[in-house]
Amino acid sequence: MTTRISRREIIKSSGLLGAGMLLSALGGFSKVEAKIGAPKKWPWPYEKLDPAKTAEIAYEEWYRVFCGAAVISSVFKQLGEKIGEPYKSFPVDPFIVLEGGMAGWGTICGSLAGANIVTNMIIGPRIAGPDCEHGHIIGSNIMNWYSNTNLPVYIPRNPRANKEKIVQTVSNSPLCHISVGKWMKASGFPLGSPERKDRCARLAASVAYKLVEDMNAWKDGKYDEDLVWTAAQSVGITGQQNCTECHGTNIPSAPTGR
Amino acid sequence: MTTRISRREIIKSSGLLGAGMLLSALGGFSKVEAKIGAPKKWPWPYEKLDPAKTAEIAYEEWYRVFCGAAVISSVFKQLGEKIGEPYKSFPVDPFIVLEGGMAGWGTICGSLAGANIVTNMIIGPRIAGPDCEHGHIIGSNIMNWYSNTNLPVYIPRNPRANKEKIVQTVSNSPLCHISVGKWMKASGFPLGSPERKDRCARLAASVAYKLVEDMNAWKDGKYDEDLVWTAAQSVGITGQQNCTECHGTNIPSAPTGR
Repeated sequence: MTTRISRREIIKSSGLLGAGMLLSALGGFSKVEAKIGAPKKWPWPYEKLDPAKTAEIAYEEWYRVFCGAAVISSVFKQLGEKIGEPYKSFPVDPFIVLEGGMAGWGTICGSLAGANIVTNMIIGPRIAGPDCEHGHIIGSNIMNWYSNTNLPVYIPRNPRANKEKIVQTVSNSPLCHISVGKWMKASGFPLGSPERKDRCARLAASVAYKLVEDMNAWKDGKYDEDLVWTAAQSVGITGQQNCTECHGTNIPSAPTGR
Repeated sequence: MTTRISRREIIKSSGLLGAGMLLSALGGFSKVEAKIGAPKKWPWPYEKLDPAKTAEIAYEEWYRVFCGAAVISSVFKQLGEKIGEPYKSFPVDPFIVLEGGMAGWGTICGSLAGANIVTNMIIGPRIAGPDCEHGHIIGSNIMNWYSNTNLPVYIPRNPRANKEKIVQTVSNSPLCHISVGKWMKASGFPLGSPERKDRCARLAASVAYKLVEDMNAWKDGKYDEDLVWTAAQSVGITGQQNCTECHGTNIPSAPTGR
């Protein structure tokens, strides 16, 4: 019994359609023009950043504003210095609430929420036009990378714990509860331990590193991946790839037609 | 066998401690001063809003920017008109990525993510001082209300579907996948149906209504609830209240001490 739908199955079922068609399954592109607020233009200016420097900032910022805001801060701080606005006045700190999977509720890993906010804030909302679709795609594909990678991968210059070695785990999920739970089980360290905190700070750093690698590729016009995971098309409901991990073998079918 | 930890058990295990002590279990208040970016001040100016009007805006905006951005827009659009900055230039549309539980991955319901961003953006990040703790608390308690309420509760003036009646369900979870999955099972409507879209638009409207009720109470100095759910203290890991729904009776214990 496999515990998740394989990448091969996803690609097979989605048929590697264009991003537009894949996105349309969820809610559809809106053709209604923005009616609210001042006109906003995307993409925002972006200059390529050093992934390792970004990861170091994310690691240190974790101890101030935790995972989600640390990832946002690691990118926006540097762009604020290089470019100025709109990064300089962007309110990063309130995204501390992304911690612990949104105020400790264990939903989406804050580092991933932060990464998605960064890509969509800079490249733009997908409804802003074809130039802006990569914000959605890069963010979503980082969730796929995170779910399938032995994390954390980034080793900070001055780790605050796990100095000799660190346990790595594959979450098979973008959820904080599952990601940190598997790591706590494998390592034996409790939530409040310095080792767990260092692990999550390294995770924020690892996500920030990957995020900047992808943003740099996008800036160079070399990010050409389609969406890897399209739950709405693949399984008829929003979701992750690890159905059996919660459902066991009794996976419900989503309603179709009428 | 109960499928979730009861409110009574939560309150018993948390002992109704002060918000500060409850928050400290997750990562602790940071005493480090903000080192990055321009100084930001919270709370932002807030004027009381009409919950029903806010809900109507959220319902209509759902069809443009979907759940998360619709909730943010429903509040910030009005405050932009009443107050001006910093609401007027706030980039709401990129939060379209909150749709479908973050780009369709079924994690946190976008309406809840949007509500948390609103409370923390206006009242402030919890590290900004005691006046700013309610951003975290109100957002978290809205997740608790959402998980335990038969939703959607708000009936729009001009519903686009489910015009005669609508199926309501209790999610027992803040996750999009579980919330929409239970509704799809109870109603029989598929993800792409007008009925499911109307349901999620009403959910955004219901959350926006509750959000403004709570923000108005806070503005009047009458929001005095403590955190209802504190997973880190109650179960030693970030998480929801419905452990057995995924784990069955085999709920792992979180590591403690060393």
